[in-house]
Amino acid sequence: MGAGMAGLTRFSVSIDETLLAQFDRQAAREGCPTRSKAVADLIRDSLVRQEWKTGREVAAAIVMVYDHHKHDLAHRLTHIQHEHHKLILSTQHIHLDHDNCLEIVVVRGRPSAVEGLANLLKATKGVKFCSVAAASTGANI
Amino acid sequence: MGAGMAGLTRFSVSIDETLLAQFDRQAAREGCPTRSKAVADLIRDSLVRQEWKTGREVAAAIVMVYDHHKHDLAHRLTHIQHEHHKLILSTQHIHLDHDNCLEIVVVRGRPSAVEGLANLLKATKGVKFCSVAAASTGANI
Amino acid sequence: MGAGMAGLTRFSVSIDETLLAQFDRQAAREGCPTRSKAVADLIRDSLVRQEWKTGREVAAAIVMVYDHHKHDLAHRLTHIQHEHHKLILSTQHIHLDHDNCLEIVVVRGRPSAVEGLANLLKATKGVKFCSVAAASTGANI
Amino acid sequence: MGAGMAGLTRFSVSIDETLLAQFDRQAAREGCPTRSKAVADLIRDSLVRQEWKTGREVAAAIVMVYDHHKHDLAHRLTHIQHEHHKLILSTQHIHLDHDNCLEIVVVRGRPSAVEGLANLLKATKGVKFCSVAAASTGANI
Repeated sequence: MGAGMAGLTRFSVSIDETLLAQFDRQAAREGCPTRSKAVADLIRDSLVRQEWKTGREVAAAIVMVYDHHKHDLAHRLTHIQHEHHKLILSTQHIHLDHDNCLEIVVVRGRPSAVEGLANLLKATKGVKFCSVAAASTGANI
Repeated sequence: MGAGMAGLTRFSVSIDETLLAQFDRQAAREGCPTRSKAVADLIRDSLVRQEWKTGREVAAAIVMVYDHHKHDLAHRLTHIQHEHHKLILSTQHIHLDHDNCLEIVVVRGRPSAVEGLANLLKATKGVKFCSVAAASTGANI
Repeated sequence: MGAGMAGLTRFSVSIDETLLAQFDRQAAREGCPTRSKAVADLIRDSLVRQEWKTGREVAAAIVMVYDHHKHDLAHRLTHIQHEHHKLILSTQHIHLDHDNCLEIVVVRGRPSAVEGLANLLKATKGVKFCSVAAASTGANI
Repeated sequence: MGAGMAGLTRFSVSIDETLLAQFDRQAAREGCPTRSKAVADLIRDSLVRQEWKTGREVAAAIVMVYDHHKHDLAHRLTHIQHEHHKLILSTQHIHLDHDNCLEIVVVRGRPSAVEGLANLLKATKGVKFCSVAAASTGANI
């Protein structure tokens, strides 16, 4: 269940006038439709950072760039992924050019498990780049 | 063309013994197969950060969490994505639970264009989380 | 003048109940005294990130670690700092051990000027570590 | 003792030609005097990130902005700092303008202790901004 099921509530914030004016200007520049969404976005970002620190279940995308010509690489990366099939939700593959592939592995689990898998993939010969994009399962935000 | 097409070369590094020992320990802990890959990985990460600063063409994944029940949201996000079809390579959608969706939009273009699209998606009512995972086209690393 | 001179105002936020409950729990865990301060802190952090992106005047601390035995280093770093005396507000020096110094150079200026000085210091032989801690002049937050 | 006491050693790296050319260009742009320093800098940055993850003793600067007119704030912050005198090496104070102060508290200890102190300072009413600049004791890099 997402936070969204619980219904809306209101609270009021006491804040410096100038600070609020700056915040409104920033929200306008970014096209944010309401002040409430702008505040809620900051709160959710902060909670997601917290989820990653405290080790609660998270969702994430592992983003890799590799040269598929090297080292039977596609095969080896598929093998590693199958060994972690419980962690992995899906994989998306892009042919960037003749040599380079971009692969996005979407995962759900504990931050330490996500980082363990990312380390394994990154350590594979031929993988040029591998990073973890932190996201959330949405269940608590 | 990727860096990988150019052939290998060697160079030598003069470094503190203790620093090298620490680096080897770290590489071993992360399962990195050779010292050369460990050094090349650091170099590539540093070049990718540079690509994002200097505004060269990059690849990236925009990672979003949203509640599809809200505001005809799936339709509106699809509409925004179609208006940026030149920037977008592909989209992957995960049903996290009854309410929450995880969507990963893979893009290729200038960092400012990528961030512009991410801002648009994030500003859409009902989007709970949206961040950009910086990667590379692989062409220069 | 700081935002603080402008007087307080109030606004109200409409938000999911569960999200607010999570936020309150987080604020309590971090010892934050009121919900208004917790929200204002998120807003100020977000504005400071914006100040660094848009190139407005910022304050920052450049944090360096170096081995003062090497290369007449203290002298050379002092020389670089004097050539940037308009950017630098003050310097604090800590003797970490027999060899290592920690030096914190507090600066005020445009982000590009701050990063230019940090690059110069980092490029100096014997400097082991150098990073920029982004802060704010406080004038707009 | 710093890594610097152990004497120099050499190792060689096998790497793509194009990647090396990109790296040399970047090092030149940043004014880095030798390729060895450029590589060693990347290695040290990576080890410092590791020190923070594994909880070894680190050095850091806690950077705060606050309005000294509020809430007897200077007195309260001094009180908190004295209660953590074992963690704190020194404090530097800058008068940014009539209202705003920039204070840099240099600390040495475990990352969790550093973050605990930063949370306490940040939670104090009137503190507008507080972040931790990660550095190193230099002992292992």
